[in-house]
Amino acid sequence: MSITVEKQLVTLNQDIAGQEIGIPVYRIADSSKPASTQVYIQSAVHAAEMQGSAVIFKLIKQLQALELNAEFVLVPNCNPFGRTQRAGEYLQGRFDATTGNNWNRFYHYDQADAESFVEDNLDEIAHWSEAELVSRFKAHLKRKLTEKVDREWGVNTAQFLNTTLQQLAVNADLVLDLHTGPSSTRHIYAPEFLAEQAQYFNIENIISIPVSFAGALDEASFTPWVDLAELLSQKGIEFSYRVKAFTVELGSQENICLTQAKQDSLGVLNYLQQVGLVDGFAGVELTEITTTLLKDYKTLFSKHAGMVEYLAKAGDKVNKGQVIARVLNSLEFDNDSAITEVIAPATGTVILHYPSAAVQVGTQLYKIAIDS
Amino acid sequence: MSITVEKQLVTLNQDIAGQEIGIPVYRIADSSKPASTQVYIQSAVHAAEMQGSAVIFKLIKQLQALELNAEFVLVPNCNPFGRTQRAGEYLQGRFDATTGNNWNRFYHYDQADAESFVEDNLDEIAHWSEAELVSRFKAHLKRKLTEKVDREWGVNTAQFLNTTLQQLAVNADLVLDLHTGPSSTRHIYAPEFLAEQAQYFNIENIISIPVSFAGALDEASFTPWVDLAELLSQKGIEFSYRVKAFTVELGSQENICLTQAKQDSLGVLNYLQQVGLVDGFAGVELTEITTTLLKDYKTLFSKHAGMVEYLAKAGDKVNKGQVIARVLNSLEFDNDSAITEVIAPATGTVILHYPSAAVQVGTQLYKIAIDS
Amino acid sequence: MSITVEKQLVTLNQDIAGQEIGIPVYRIADSSKPASTQVYIQSAVHAAEMQGSAVIFKLIKQLQALELNAEFVLVPNCNPFGRTQRAGEYLQGRFDATTGNNWNRFYHYDQADAESFVEDNLDEIAHWSEAELVSRFKAHLKRKLTEKVDREWGVNTAQFLNTTLQQLAVNADLVLDLHTGPSSTRHIYAPEFLAEQAQYFNIENIISIPVSFAGALDEASFTPWVDLAELLSQKGIEFSYRVKAFTVELGSQENICLTQAKQDSLGVLNYLQQVGLVDGFAGVELTEITTTLLKDYKTLFSKHAGMVEYLAKAGDKVNKGQVIARVLNSLEFDNDSAITEVIAPATGTVILHYPSAAVQVGTQLYKIAIDS
Amino acid sequence: MSITVEKQLVTLNQDIAGQEIGIPVYRIADSSKPASTQVYIQSAVHAAEMQGSAVIFKLIKQLQALELNAEFVLVPNCNPFGRTQRAGEYLQGRFDATTGNNWNRFYHYDQADAESFVEDNLDEIAHWSEAELVSRFKAHLKRKLTEKVDREWGVNTAQFLNTTLQQLAVNADLVLDLHTGPSSTRHIYAPEFLAEQAQYFNIENIISIPVSFAGALDEASFTPWVDLAELLSQKGIEFSYRVKAFTVELGSQENICLTQAKQDSLGVLNYLQQVGLVDGFAGVELTEITTTLLKDYKTLFSKHAGMVEYLAKAGDKVNKGQVIARVLNSLEFDNDSAITEVIAPATGTVILHYPSAAVQVGTQLYKIAIDS
Repeated sequence: MSITVEKQLVTLNQDIAGQEIGIPVYRIADSSKPASTQVYIQSAVHAAEMQGSAVIFKLIKQLQALELNAEFVLVPNCNPFGRTQRAGEYLQGRFDATTGNNWNRFYHYDQADAESFVEDNLDEIAHWSEAELVSRFKAHLKRKLTEKVDREWGVNTAQFLNTTLQQLAVNADLVLDLHTGPSSTRHIYAPEFLAEQAQYFNIENIISIPVSFAGALDEASFTPWVDLAELLSQKGIEFSYRVKAFTVELGSQENICLTQAKQDSLGVLNYLQQVGLVDGFAGVELTEITTTLLKDYKTLFSKHAGMVEYLAKAGDKVNKGQVIARVLNSLEFDNDSAITEVIAPATGTVILHYPSAAVQVGTQLYKIAIDS
Repeated sequence: MSITVEKQLVTLNQDIAGQEIGIPVYRIADSSKPASTQVYIQSAVHAAEMQGSAVIFKLIKQLQALELNAEFVLVPNCNPFGRTQRAGEYLQGRFDATTGNNWNRFYHYDQADAESFVEDNLDEIAHWSEAELVSRFKAHLKRKLTEKVDREWGVNTAQFLNTTLQQLAVNADLVLDLHTGPSSTRHIYAPEFLAEQAQYFNIENIISIPVSFAGALDEASFTPWVDLAELLSQKGIEFSYRVKAFTVELGSQENICLTQAKQDSLGVLNYLQQVGLVDGFAGVELTEITTTLLKDYKTLFSKHAGMVEYLAKAGDKVNKGQVIARVLNSLEFDNDSAITEVIAPATGTVILHYPSAAVQVGTQLYKIAIDS
Repeated sequence: MSITVEKQLVTLNQDIAGQEIGIPVYRIADSSKPASTQVYIQSAVHAAEMQGSAVIFKLIKQLQALELNAEFVLVPNCNPFGRTQRAGEYLQGRFDATTGNNWNRFYHYDQADAESFVEDNLDEIAHWSEAELVSRFKAHLKRKLTEKVDREWGVNTAQFLNTTLQQLAVNADLVLDLHTGPSSTRHIYAPEFLAEQAQYFNIENIISIPVSFAGALDEASFTPWVDLAELLSQKGIEFSYRVKAFTVELGSQENICLTQAKQDSLGVLNYLQQVGLVDGFAGVELTEITTTLLKDYKTLFSKHAGMVEYLAKAGDKVNKGQVIARVLNSLEFDNDSAITEVIAPATGTVILHYPSAAVQVGTQLYKIAIDS
Repeated sequence: MSITVEKQLVTLNQDIAGQEIGIPVYRIADSSKPASTQVYIQSAVHAAEMQGSAVIFKLIKQLQALELNAEFVLVPNCNPFGRTQRAGEYLQGRFDATTGNNWNRFYHYDQADAESFVEDNLDEIAHWSEAELVSRFKAHLKRKLTEKVDREWGVNTAQFLNTTLQQLAVNADLVLDLHTGPSSTRHIYAPEFLAEQAQYFNIENIISIPVSFAGALDEASFTPWVDLAELLSQKGIEFSYRVKAFTVELGSQENICLTQAKQDSLGVLNYLQQVGLVDGFAGVELTEITTTLLKDYKTLFSKHAGMVEYLAKAGDKVNKGQVIARVLNSLEFDNDSAITEVIAPATGTVILHYPSAAVQVGTQLYKIAIDS
């Protein structure tokens, strides 16, 4: 066993003076073994969601003490645009400050990618081994990413960021995108076909999402492979390989905690061990885990502007009809309209709430995983 | 003729103290005639795009001197969320500062609206006059808007703003949404079926857009009627009524000019006169007008960060291969890399460019209407 | 006893549409007694510092159950400019988003005010009773405020806000300006001559400040009276009356808690009872209180950019040399420079720390009250 | 003559990932001559004020073709904090987005610096040549800057930026700080003792400022030398050396124009030639120049919120009583209050106006140099 850690600074951005601003990319592998498998982990594409970077810090240490059955590519603080964007005392790293484009909604996905691949290789595809098919489709996807970034008319900033990150991730068999919520408990988004396996992360709440594309990296990673399998199935070819991808939500934004990061990393290592990507990890004791379908993961938008006291906190169980928040209206401090109660519309678990007491009509007050 | 001007303050927002912030709604009609037709005009849903409000100011005066064949509903400064949002010396009224949601992308449209209407009225629909059909479908759409705003779990702030504005616009037969570009020449978005008629506005550049929905008010206004006509056509019923809707781009943001607003209003009045909504307007001399299909209206995104000198200005004709901008890189001031030239990828008309010299990779440098 | 609560909406701002945005002003008094004394309490001039508004809500209720020896003027959410200014998911209500002017640094104070008053009334001043002197100087200060707001060339937005609020406060004998810190424990700024009396508020940490003006309301309230007393003393007239004024810091920003607001209000009521402004309040059990001179209340600015884990929290005692924070540098995750430790430069109490893990060089990491 | 251009990247900032962000520093000198004199020129400390960087680009070329009697230190885009801070489509590089601290108000100046220098060298100072005195006081000031940056408790971000830039400028005999206004004509701030000499820059409007410190680099550069001369004068020592320093305002922000930059650079070269710092420059034809005392350079703050049409533009002469702007109020579009006229309070020249039509009460509408 001979584990190496390589570090590279990938230039991604320049500021207006012309200075290059890049992202550190760490590659960890056992140089004594050929790595046929790759794991890609990035953090903080929403720049204020920093806990994932602390987890990557812990993983870099811990992976070096384990037996590695894959090459690991780790990219902390992967958004050089967002991480310099201050707004008052906080970091507005959630969307492009110029356009409003969410940094996590412009990854590349095109249904035509799988279609053109199958069409171009119609005669040979049946003769390829699964390994060859996987390798050739990855190469095909990589070309599509390059073509996109190289377009004569260019791409927008979020597309540029997202597509460039995807070029780093496109060879991976497992993709983890580390995020946090606003004031949030830990939860994980897993595609339906991985919802059960996701339990190995040892995170209390799993949100099981359908295989479709709404712009995020996890979706962009697994959806083309499901597309490909369907097209092949129509040709009578069975193809079971899938890229595995998860969005992991590690608590609250604007915060890091190294002690908790150690805990978070143990969950990741447990998953890696269970799916055979590392060996030698001692394991963790699994907590009780709830899985909620995306359709039952609901957002409660405020119907009132005012100052909000959040009575139900992230992680709390709430019952339908329960008062979960109070909105204070300072123009009515002398009468009974001073307080408006916010009622839980269903029974379930509070996954997150808005991080400020100051809300307007339409503010995303709570996200609740409803009991099925 | 007895023209009345009514003013109403429609509450739409509260600030966190509880104070209501509303929008002024002006209604102008000839009270001596029953108004079977309605025209809806709003401005500044992107709050820094103020010139449309100056145009509404001029229209309110001018309409009172004409013969009116419709009721006019005019809503200047229609975005009470955006118009208080300052960012340095400018107004960031383009998107929700909390979420990045573009204030012009969350209007309500659902293909199911026309479907449910036809299904619910299957037996009677063939017996209705066009007028009755129009009136009943408007009422149906209005109910859908109300249902959306009243959802138990609420809607987000942009949806709340957009849907509330649509409730004001839903009875209109003509909808004008007044915008501006960044550093921009005047242009107008017209649905294909109105591209020719749009010439009456006397605006040099028309962008002809397909009938489909990407979130804006004009699309949300006419698309359901095209849906309805298609469904009726499948049932053998011909239905030619369409709501007419346009997005009008009145030059550059962060600016008002009353002299130019007078000119702008004359184009609007000319359109109204030509389609029979007013009488007694003297008309204007038409300028030369170019119509470009949306697929030929292209955005040039920057491939470099730096300080940009815009050589081609809004309204300029440019040739493929022409140097239209120069990007200055202050880290290379001592060598030939100090300046990178930006080349026009096609021949056409510059409609707008970015309003600041400071750009990053992916900044929308230019929008160009390509010669066909 | 016949307590009345009056409410008034004082217009202070307009948005660009022309809509007036005001502040609610509550006046509570015993109408059966002439009120020779006035108390002024405002909150949230830094708009995200909302807890004071919750405290005012509680005070409005509680005052009605007590015997009042003064008129109470209460102004929650007193900053209509700041309270609409969103920045990501937080409220940037700390400074004018256009100019950077801190909303709490532009109150009016001019040493010449006391000088001109003494000069103008040189002959009569010795013959006035203290009450008459107080009343006349208040009127003089009020005129100066009016003159300032009415200047031909105008005043800047922060001056306009601050001076207008001062017009509401200028008759008060006691002024409380309710604030919060970022991530903060409760503390109170008291002028040296009131540092001991400030203990009645029952807040653990008192910062004793010299009588001088740095822009805030408390300083603007008491400094002219100290000026006046000095000038009179030079003329051989003893004048002991002082306006009392405090800035009260009620925990952390972006947050309200009604339970805690009840506690906070009891401290205020205790002070009011002790200085004779109310009767009938049951009192509170005093906690242990530390007083620190302003010169010993020190800010620790970060010398490193990175992601910070705050090990010492608001309210913690720290020792000189203790590691109070760790800064994570993601470009050094593979070596020992990954973590830089932040050391307490002195022994004392952490009053507050920065609310985000994301810091740059020069970020105000901690404020520490040093043990004397 | 053997002119060399050296380039250095001075690290000044890191982003939260740990990546260093620096400023390019160009040094141009004739290596065949010992440079006893130094010129320091920086641009864009307010990051959106970019035209000065284009001027430095031109100067770097032009200086190489002249005879140099000094070493030139040129620092374009000198603010790595501000130049990444986007706010909508503009660059908010005017103040620290966290604190509101203006990036041009935290340069180091302390009256005690000259005092301690004189006191420390009381016995020897009379025996020093002027050159020695200058050299020793520069070294003294440099030490003070180093002590400040190295303080145990640190300094705030604006202090860090400003003091670091001052370390680059402290040896210079001439300091030029290149800025722009919002929508502005060219003007220059000159200390009274240089107001006449400032005409060589060939800029139409000179603002003559008293020698005192309000936070800017020009003031921080020359004030200590005036302090020193006064203290020496009290000891009977005549000392006429002064650091020369100017703030040059090169038109409007958010914009660069290379053609105009060429013109701007000719003015700078003309000054350099006239004061003997270069030779061989052909000279320029001087325009008519007006000098205004700072007390006559007045700001007109808006008394109304609304949408403003600026009738008087930068560079225009206006007469007292003239309507220079109109404020539109959309809540009064149906009556005579729709427009409020803004009147020039005095006769003079409009130097700049606010760059947006959207204003609030207290917005800095115009700055006018009043005719004396």
